[in-house]
Amino acid sequence: MALITPRTLSGFKDRLPKEALAKAHLLSKVSSVFMNFGFVPIETPHLEYAEVLVKQGSEEIQKELYRFKDHGDRDVALRFDLTVPLARFVSQYKNEVDLPFKRFAIGNVFRGERAQRGRYREFTQCDFDFIGSDSISCDAEILQVIYASLVGLGIDEFTIWLNHRKILNGICEYCGIVGERNVNATLRIIDKLDKIGKEAVSAELQKELSLSSTQADNLLEYTSIKQQGDSESFFKQISFMEEWNENTREGIKDLKALYAVLEPLQMDRDTYRVNFSIARGLGYYTGIVYETTLNALKSIGSVCSGGRYDNLTRTFSKDKMSGVGASIGIDRLLAALEELNLLDKKATSARALIVCMDSTYFGYAHFLAESFRRSKVPIEVYPEISKLKKQFGYANAKGHEFVIVIGESEFNSKTLTLKNMTSGMQMDKLSFLKALTLIQEDEPEELKI
Amino acid sequence: MALITPRTLSGFKDRLPKEALAKAHLLSKVSSVFMNFGFVPIETPHLEYAEVLVKQGSEEIQKELYRFKDHGDRDVALRFDLTVPLARFVSQYKNEVDLPFKRFAIGNVFRGERAQRGRYREFTQCDFDFIGSDSISCDAEILQVIYASLVGLGIDEFTIWLNHRKILNGICEYCGIVGERNVNATLRIIDKLDKIGKEAVSAELQKELSLSSTQADNLLEYTSIKQQGDSESFFKQISFMEEWNENTREGIKDLKALYAVLEPLQMDRDTYRVNFSIARGLGYYTGIVYETTLNALKSIGSVCSGGRYDNLTRTFSKDKMSGVGASIGIDRLLAALEELNLLDKKATSARALIVCMDSTYFGYAHFLAESFRRSKVPIEVYPEISKLKKQFGYANAKGHEFVIVIGESEFNSKTLTLKNMTSGMQMDKLSFLKALTLIQEDEPEELKI
Repeated sequence: MALITPRTLSGFKDRLPKEALAKAHLLSKVSSVFMNFGFVPIETPHLEYAEVLVKQGSEEIQKELYRFKDHGDRDVALRFDLTVPLARFVSQYKNEVDLPFKRFAIGNVFRGERAQRGRYREFTQCDFDFIGSDSISCDAEILQVIYASLVGLGIDEFTIWLNHRKILNGICEYCGIVGERNVNATLRIIDKLDKIGKEAVSAELQKELSLSSTQADNLLEYTSIKQQGDSESFFKQISFMEEWNENTREGIKDLKALYAVLEPLQMDRDTYRVNFSIARGLGYYTGIVYETTLNALKSIGSVCSGGRYDNLTRTFSKDKMSGVGASIGIDRLLAALEELNLLDKKATSARALIVCMDSTYFGYAHFLAESFRRSKVPIEVYPEISKLKKQFGYANAKGHEFVIVIGESEFNSKTLTLKNMTSGMQMDKLSFLKALTLIQEDEPEELKI
Repeated sequence: MALITPRTLSGFKDRLPKEALAKAHLLSKVSSVFMNFGFVPIETPHLEYAEVLVKQGSEEIQKELYRFKDHGDRDVALRFDLTVPLARFVSQYKNEVDLPFKRFAIGNVFRGERAQRGRYREFTQCDFDFIGSDSISCDAEILQVIYASLVGLGIDEFTIWLNHRKILNGICEYCGIVGERNVNATLRIIDKLDKIGKEAVSAELQKELSLSSTQADNLLEYTSIKQQGDSESFFKQISFMEEWNENTREGIKDLKALYAVLEPLQMDRDTYRVNFSIARGLGYYTGIVYETTLNALKSIGSVCSGGRYDNLTRTFSKDKMSGVGASIGIDRLLAALEELNLLDKKATSARALIVCMDSTYFGYAHFLAESFRRSKVPIEVYPEISKLKKQFGYANAKGHEFVIVIGESEFNSKTLTLKNMTSGMQMDKLSFLKALTLIQEDEPEELKI
């Protein structure tokens, strides 16, 4: 029988234990944050009717769709995001789901785009949305979830940049740019500010939208306004914009209402700031929008973005369904945590490894392991009898903190020989139990295990 | 614009919050058990080269495969299990992965089989395997993981039925059935025992394999041996079989070695018993095999099955890679937990709901919620100002235990009005904090929140 070459498709990725463990840890942390706020998981299939997916997606998405005929000759496709399935879901179950509805979804999506460094054709999305309410309380909560997620992951220096679609519309209106198409084109160009710089943006604005240089400069001036100090002085500083038009007035009013909910909280006020250059999801968002950057690693871009939209289910229903939601960029966040040295670089979840010098000690080894696990210490038993060098090598490669050796004398006297893998030293049982925080510093040695 | 009907493909399933929460809870429990034993997650893509998947699968699997041409005209398919991708993975990364290798994988797989009640074309598998060691310590550990998983889910009455492929081969040999094909045909017929009964099985054995009625009866007699009491008397009872042939001798020796590792443990000895009728995965398994039934719900079938195999990677490599593993039947287990009333039937992860009588109280409401969350109490803030009836209805439908009402007087005096949703009664803050176990029974009321 000819052998098959073991390989993955181009643009698809396996995760080895170190990386998969780090990702599982991250997803478990953020899931528990979501649930603490009362967000619940839902599940939708990876495969859907193509017509369910394509209508709402852009043309680019259509080209990237994994679409084929199934066994029943149905036109089907793999989902390319979690938002379209959510829209289908809330339209389909509107009688079962009580509004307001708070859901989160963590799942893989598929896009057949050209494979490039750091971009994959299958990747994980992590979305949370608060649907069916226009209340500012929802916007405030989504921001709290972002805050709690990042703090929960050990990141404390980050900024959630806030803006409002209406303020952007209002600035455009004030600068003489009207019509959705022109406004969107303008915002798309301004979005390049970080990449190509002020002058190039100004030139492009003048060329593409036939703006005067004054118009372009004004646009750039207003969209580059950022909150520096406390909110009171910031809102005073931008109060002149409230005179401009209904759009700026409403946008600023919403931001003030948001701050009224957020500022009583213990959540650090320095972590959220208004920034009029944040554009995000041009056609989709209609209210407050945000991006989150890590202060020590701005270059990596936004690790969590989102905002308010006013019509999620337009392709499925005539009823408007508004909401607010955000998406955590799992891959980006993992890369950031790695760069910030906040990732555990182990290939095992176990803290200790038990090795036996003879197979007749396995019963005792598993008995010990069972006792440690009951005390919440993850531990594993090396299953082979081999040279200690091999077993210590295994522990070293995987990242166990301790190795417990069971030889004849340990087995007969029901004791352990312990080695601390970090120091390379032997240790006594008391220091071991202390290291595992199974006993307190001053507690007398009691043989709990 | 014409509206799209929101619908899922036939044989595919959405999970609403109640069900998705229960499943997420189950998967989180078993994942933490896996990790306590040092099993690590890996990730492989949902989509693979078709040739990677089909060679190892049966013909039936080939017919059920979701297979198509991708954008680059590659012949690709959705995975139909997690074992073939594991075999591909360990062949591909044999230099990166240290053996013995313990991995778990939880993921969705796809089979385009005829849709029927309780069977779906996309479903979740949950596998854990210990690869690259022939040691009985691994077999013992897989069984411990099954035990710890079920106990962790609150199930305490279950039986892990053990058998050994060699004992089955040895029984067949003793009864005059030789050749892999005949042995497999025999086991396939014996596997129907529970469904069609002894007489029908005997008739089928005589007809299909041209056995005499004595041969058939002997086969049925030996395969219906089950361990009743302790292992010592059981092994004494079956010692006559050790005389038969090499197969029965080796099989019984392995089972004895397994018991020598398991019996020193605190793990309840009544939960694992030998049963010579367990056949399982005919071509694949070669050593100890097992199925797990719930004592109170035997009809549901095995909720966790597995065993030892001696060549995982045969389609990818000439090197033999042996191992032992098992699979938890997530859907079956969920159904069982539901029937045993062990499932939380809530549609929310939050214990309490805060409702405000006026939008100016949102800041205070979120401040309160933030304090509870810091004390590990999941809680949510109702985002709308509406009639209390509506908000209480929301809490009732989702399953919140408590509702906290913030009206003018509560806001001004920074207190709470509390309602216990189970009793329907108002409660004071002290009883509330006790109910949340935030304070101990005898602790004086201190305003921690």
